[in-house]
This record gives sequence, structure tokens and C-alpha cells, in this order.
Amino acid sequence: MKNKLQNLKNILYEVDDLQKAAAVLYWDQSTYMPAGGAVGRGNQLSTLSKVAHEKFVDTAVGKLLDDLQPYADSLPDDDDDARLINVVRRDYDKATKVPSTLLAELYGHVAASYQAWTKARPSNDFEMVRPYLEKTLDLSRQIANCFPDYDHIADPLIDRSDEGMKTAVIRQIFSDLRTELVPLVQAITDLPEPDNSFLFKHYPEQKQLDFGMKAAIQYGFDTHRGRQDKTHHPFMTSFGHGDIRITTRVNEHRFDDALFSTLHEAGHAMYEMGIRPELDRTPLANGTSSGVHESQSRLWENIVGRSYEFWQHYYPQLQTVFPENLNDVSLDAFYRAINKVSKSLIRTDADEVTYNLHVMIRFDLSIQLLEGTLEVKDLPEAWNSRYQSDLGLQAPNDVDGVLQDVHWYSGVIGGSFQGYTLGNIMSSLFYEQALKAHPSIPAEIAQGEFGTLHGWLRENLYQHGRKYTANELIKRTTGGDLTITPYLNYLHGKFRKLYNIS
Amino acid sequence: MKNKLQNLKNILYEVDDLQKAAAVLYWDQSTYMPAGGAVGRGNQLSTLSKVAHEKFVDTAVGKLLDDLQPYADSLPDDDDDARLINVVRRDYDKATKVPSTLLAELYGHVAASYQAWTKARPSNDFEMVRPYLEKTLDLSRQIANCFPDYDHIADPLIDRSDEGMKTAVIRQIFSDLRTELVPLVQAITDLPEPDNSFLFKHYPEQKQLDFGMKAAIQYGFDTHRGRQDKTHHPFMTSFGHGDIRITTRVNEHRFDDALFSTLHEAGHAMYEMGIRPELDRTPLANGTSSGVHESQSRLWENIVGRSYEFWQHYYPQLQTVFPENLNDVSLDAFYRAINKVSKSLIRTDADEVTYNLHVMIRFDLSIQLLEGTLEVKDLPEAWNSRYQSDLGLQAPNDVDGVLQDVHWYSGVIGGSFQGYTLGNIMSSLFYEQALKAHPSIPAEIAQGEFGTLHGWLRENLYQHGRKYTANELIKRTTGGDLTITPYLNYLHGKFRKLYNIS
Repeated sequence: MKNKLQNLKNILYEVDDLQKAAAVLYWDQSTYMPAGGAVGRGNQLSTLSKVAHEKFVDTAVGKLLDDLQPYADSLPDDDDDARLINVVRRDYDKATKVPSTLLAELYGHVAASYQAWTKARPSNDFEMVRPYLEKTLDLSRQIANCFPDYDHIADPLIDRSDEGMKTAVIRQIFSDLRTELVPLVQAITDLPEPDNSFLFKHYPEQKQLDFGMKAAIQYGFDTHRGRQDKTHHPFMTSFGHGDIRITTRVNEHRFDDALFSTLHEAGHAMYEMGIRPELDRTPLANGTSSGVHESQSRLWENIVGRSYEFWQHYYPQLQTVFPENLNDVSLDAFYRAINKVSKSLIRTDADEVTYNLHVMIRFDLSIQLLEGTLEVKDLPEAWNSRYQSDLGLQAPNDVDGVLQDVHWYSGVIGGSFQGYTLGNIMSSLFYEQALKAHPSIPAEIAQGEFGTLHGWLRENLYQHGRKYTANELIKRTTGGDLTITPYLNYLHGKFRKLYNIS
Repeated sequence: MKNKLQNLKNILYEVDDLQKAAAVLYWDQSTYMPAGGAVGRGNQLSTLSKVAHEKFVDTAVGKLLDDLQPYADSLPDDDDDARLINVVRRDYDKATKVPSTLLAELYGHVAASYQAWTKARPSNDFEMVRPYLEKTLDLSRQIANCFPDYDHIADPLIDRSDEGMKTAVIRQIFSDLRTELVPLVQAITDLPEPDNSFLFKHYPEQKQLDFGMKAAIQYGFDTHRGRQDKTHHPFMTSFGHGDIRITTRVNEHRFDDALFSTLHEAGHAMYEMGIRPELDRTPLANGTSSGVHESQSRLWENIVGRSYEFWQHYYPQLQTVFPENLNDVSLDAFYRAINKVSKSLIRTDADEVTYNLHVMIRFDLSIQLLEGTLEVKDLPEAWNSRYQSDLGLQAPNDVDGVLQDVHWYSGVIGGSFQGYTLGNIMSSLFYEQALKAHPSIPAEIAQGEFGTLHGWLRENLYQHGRKYTANELIKRTTGGDLTITPYLNYLHGKFRKLYNIS
């Protein structure tokens, strides 16, 4: 059995090496690659993905898994090897149930769909992408139908990034959340807007980058095992335990863009950096779900990075770096500015409170498309109607509406949006537990010390990688199931106080 | 047949994609990778190399080649497909004749040997690496003996980087060259040294980089398909037709380091950039040999970049960039300084004339080791004796002697040094032909125009990639065989004039 397990691990190591090589190529493509490299890079990424997939779905892996199952069952439930075998079993079944011809068709199609979107958006022409989106919907349904035991057709798609989460559960949670958020946003936006004009003064690039990295390093981002580079669309990527990178972008006339992007990606990176090194090169050495991953980026970006305590420590330093912009701005005024809530059309520009409304609109519309209760041709109208009801806004055109971001045009429909709001919900859920264990955390943050919080997160979440699912991590840390109560407490507590709402 | 050819090409494309992916990972390792990434990167590179090798030596490739041989023979001799099939046939035979266990042993051993060298050099302790070098020698002989038809045991090793070149031919050429070079170096170094002290003033990094890239771009380095980054040991690397990169290093107190390194690597890059795009992703899309590749780096670095004409154009610009260092230095004085010839111990610091003496010492000693006429334990003594006879110098220790660079300690013995001097020889041989076709080239260089020269090289050398061997390229351009006459004419012409030697 030990030999078979080692054989399985050796295959997994090679698959992981190939996937990590692809991650390096993708990182390079997004940071340094000259324009001329695009075609070649596409070929290289496609070959790496094909070769890694072929290695993983090889019947030899299935045979090893069959042989090893009794051994896994004989081990304690939380044994690393038992967990590995079970996670690989689930991955293998999912990977082998979708025919590779269907996957190839999907990849080819979404590449074409992405190209169509890059032309349709500047032309404000939804009709240009409509046929692509219809085909994407058809392919998404075909993929879901490879798993015919589902409760809801979106479940298998959600399961790809948030394993074990169900449409029905998420729908209920999101509905409860919306019921609270819509009136909160209304109450806030009925009040006079705080001034944030000083955030749009000139903030030189290098000073922004230096300040952001300094904070990320104090959080616990390990520059021996990571670095930050510039890109158009910030992301975090792992090349294995010893090399985990973040990217950011800088707008010299918008202070809050680069900094909070750095803190966000640093949160993702610290999660990956905290995974136990023994799990490296196996499928356990990943974040366990899109939601849990996002919970850590949002925790470090928002709960910590936009907290009053954080800026008690950092604001005097920030004023020293940008005296001409901030010397006449008080800490309180700065804190209000970076937490300003406003109804807006663009998800990626949204604040902490309204962000979820954007996400939930897309989630609901995705589900309706998959169910067939909404047709692609009616999507722009449904979009506008939901923005009107949830945010009281109407996009002047599809550029700022249904065409605004690339998600629906570059991958399957369903399964990619819920992670953002699940992440927000879980960020408070986990943070509440950390506070229960260590009530001193806010006072430490006010001193620029993050070790206690980071240590709790590493101990309870990060180290495990994919060993436990999101629901298991929630159960282990809270004793219960996913709930929005801590998140609502956080939002009400922070924003009612900030806006003086009783 | 067309189908089989396409099947073969599809395999070659995938092998190439995997090799290019490895090249990206190697580039990243040498430029941006954080220290913590070393172990993971080693695993990834090892897996990529293994998977690419397995794909290439697959019996399916051998079968396709067998089936396609009659087709190749039926095509015109210079048909792309015929050439591709024949090159792949040769590569395949070479790759399959060396057992993969032997290759694995070699890779494992040289990694350990490299580690030993990094410790032995600072300790000036040849005995620490002696056993490693003995094993490397044994493994090198084993590899050579996989090709028992050789005339000389070094031939199969030389063939790995300079296909078709033979030990006997190179030996004769090098012996003839040494006969001329030793007295030339002596005559020059008997004269008073030109002053080059101004090259060691403070030259700020960014200005050096900008100046070097500007010249490289005027040469014809295409930044749409390439870029330059910093590294410890400069190199050129290709990720395919659209993405070819160079690296350099900067010493702020030594002006000639970064600039000539940039021009050198730009020469390598322009070669790769000039290969016909139709050959991309196949084994034909490479430089044809180490010698021809080096001929292009040395041509653009030395024949052009250290020419009087080049500096007629660039020196006034350089004075504008570094006025405090150069305003009181005349063009003639600058030209003499960057072409100063001196006997030195370190190959990588050597000038155009003495460089070959360093290379030929290593080549001859490698051959003697392989033949068994020199034992590893006697290498330091043989080294010192040759430096005494050829350069009139004695290294004070092995650090600046036999331990000075990593070549013998990081790969097979034999087959890696001849390319440098073959490159120098061929650089003049090809340049002479370009001049014959276009006598206006020097006058154009004096105007900062390189299009005619670049065009001739692209037409006669670059576009073909590996379609023709080095010997074939020489035959096609000169009508004859490799000869040192043009190189001797170049060296005597340039340096006798420069040093006023009759």
C-alpha cells in the first residue's frame, strides 16, 4: 500500500509541476511578456494543460485510487493520506466524468467568446456576444449534466470552485443578506456623502507600491517566498510552497486602488503561504474553495485594512509619505473616505457594503439562465431591472451594464460569482472566532501588530489547505454551519457607527 | 504521407511547447524568482524536461520517421519538410542512443557537482571537486561511447552543440590560430597600455541600460517580440518566434560590462528573431550550432559594437549621457580603451584577442582528459603550465585558475568550449561576405544604420534556423570550408592599426 500511495503521489507531483509551470507562464503573460509572445504563449499553456490533464485522468490513477480506497478507509478520518486519497478520488471522478472533447470545445469557445467581448464592449453591442453567450450556456449545461445526480443544475458548476456548496443553500443565504443590505445601503446613501476628494490627488507610483508592500510584509507576507509585480488585473498565484506571488496595479490619481489591491492579494497569498509544506505538490496544497480563499483576501483587505485600528497605526506614516496630500486631513476624515458607501454601476469599484448586491445580481441571473427561466436575449433587460430594484440605478448603456466585466464571456456560467459574497460572509465568521480566542487583536492591530491574528488563521485555516472543505472548516472553528449573522453584525456595527445611524 | 507528417509535427509542437515552458521557468529563476522558490522550481524544470524527453523519444516518433524517410528522400534537398525530417531523425537517433538512466545519472551528478564547486571555489580547494570531476569525466566518456563510430572520443560530445564539427578539424584550426595569436598578444602587450581609467568612473545603472537598449533596438532587436531584464549571468533565451529575451547585468563602476553584454545578447536574439516564422515550434527554429550562434553575438558585440565606425556615430551621444565622465575623453582615446588588450587570468574578462587563448586552453585540456592523456588530479598543474606558455601568466591560486568558472563542474566535459572560438572565427568569415556584397556597410554603421548588414545576415543565415548545418552555411555563403583567414585578417587589421604595429 505504501508503494501504491507513493506511486500515486509521484503522479500527483508531476501533474502539480506541470500546473505550476502553467501558472508561471500565466504570471509572465500578465506581467512582463512582450505583445508578440501571445500566440506562442497560448500554445504553451494549452499543451501544458493538456499534458497535465492526460496525466491526471490516466486509468493508472483510477486503478491506484481503487486499490488505495480500503487503505484510506482504514486510516483515521483526519489522516493526511486518507484525506489526500479522498480529495483525489473526488477530483478524479469530476475530471473523468466530463469528456475531454467537451472540455476542448469549451476552451476553444470561451477563447473566441472572450475575443468577441473585447470588441462588443467598446461598441456597446450586446448582440455581438449574444450567440457566444448562448453557446456558453449550452456548454455549461452539458457540463452540469455530466453529473446527473444534482439537486439543482447549477450545483455541479458551483462545486467546481466551492466544493459541497449547494444552490438552494446559497440562494437562501443571499436572499437573507439582500433583505438586510438593501435598506442599509438606502439608509446610508440618504445621508450626505463624506468627502473623499483627497484620495484623487497625485500619489506617485513608487511611494504607493512601497507603502503597500510595507503593510503586506507587516501582515506576514513573506518576501523570501514571494514578490509583487505590476499587472492590469491584480491576482495572486502560487508556484508551490516557496514561491507565491501577488500583482497589483497603480493609479497615480486614485490612492485606494493599489493599496487595497495589495492587501487583498496579500491575504490570498498568506493563505497559500500558510499551507503545511508536507502537502506541497499535492492537490491538498491549495485553498479549499473560492469562498474560503476570498474570505482571507477580504479579511485582510477590509476587516483589517479598512479598520479604524489599522489606520490609527498607519495613518501618521501615510501622512509622512504624502504630506502635501494628507497633512490637512484628519484620521477620522481619512477613515470615512476609504469606507465611503455609494450606489454605483461597476462591481469592481464598489465599496464593502454594496459589493455584495452586485455579486448577488450576477449570481441570481446566472442561476436563472441555467434553469431556463431567463433567456440570454432578455439578459440586458433583467440586468437593468435588478440594478433598479437593488441599487436604484439604471446603467445608461450595456457597457456599464451587462457587458461591464468579462466573467460570463470567458468561462462557464454559474459557479464563479458566489465565491465573492461567500468570502465576505466567511471573513466575518472566521474573524469573530479569532476575536473570541484573542480579544486583544484589535488593540494589536492599532499597534501595527498582526501576529496573533495571522497565527490563529494559520492554525485554524491556512495550514490545512484542501484537507478540509469550507463547511468542515466552518464546523471546526464555529461548531455550526455557515451563517450570515457575524457578517451582518460586522457591517451594521461598522457602518452604522461610521454613518451615525441608530 | 501528409497526415503522417502532420502527426509528427503535432508531436514536435508539443515537445517544443514543453521545452519553451521550461525556458520561461529558467528565465524567471534567473531574473525574478524569490530565493524560496528554488526547490519547487527544480522539481518543475525536472518534470518538464522528463515529460518533453519522453514525448520525443517515444517509439511513435521513430515509426513516423521511418515511414516518412522515403517521402523526405523524394523531396528536393532543400525542402523545409525534407530538412525537418532529417534533422529530427538525427536528433531522435542521438536522443534514443543515450539510455535515459545514464542521462538521469548525469543530471543528478552535475547538480551535486555544481553544489560542490560553489563550496570549493571560495575555499580554493580543488580536491573538493576532484572526485566529482572524475565522475563527470567517466559519465562524459560513457555518453560518447553511446556513439561508438566516432573518429575521436570527443566528437560525439562536440556534435551535441556543434553538429558535424570534428575534434581533428577544430584542433588543427585552433593550433593554426594559436600560432598567430600568441606573438600578436606578445607584440601588443610589449607596448605601453592605453588609458582606460575613465571606464571605471560612476555610470548610473538606468542610463547604462537605456543606452544599451537604444543601440540594440537600432541594431534591429524587436521590442515587440522581446525585452531585456537584469540577471547575474547574462543570457539570451527564446520562448518562440514572438518572444525572445535577453538579460544583462550592470556594474555602475565599469562601463563596458552592461553595454557589450547587451550588444552580445542582442546578437544572439536577432539570430533567433530572424528565423522564418513557418519553422516555429519545430526543431528547425533554433540556431544551427553553438559556433554559428556565437558568431552572431560576437559579430554584433565586437566587429560592429567595438568598431571605430560604431563609435563615430554613438560616442557623441554617449558623451551627452555621461558628460562628467567623458567630455574630456576623445573618440580615439575611448576607442582604444574599449579595445584594450591585456593578458589576464579570467576568461570572461578577456578582450577580443586574448579571449581565444583562454578558450583554446580549456578546449585542449578537455580533449586530453577525454583521451586519457591527462588525469583529473594533474589538471591544475596542466592549467597553470598552459597559462604560462600561452599568456605568460601564473594564477596565484586555483580560484583564479582551474576553479574560475563553472563549465567543467556543471555539465559534460568536451563539447562546450569550442563554440566560443568557432564563433569568433565565423563572425569574421560571415562579415567578410556581407562586406563583399555590400561594401557600404562600414559607412552605414558610422551613420548608426545597420539595416543592410542585418538584412544580409537574415537572408543568408538567420532565416534558415537549423535547416542548414554550420558547415553548409559556410559553404553556401563562402563557397568553401571553415577557415581562419578572415578572422586573422580582421584581428591583424584592427589591432595592428590600433596599436601601431607594422
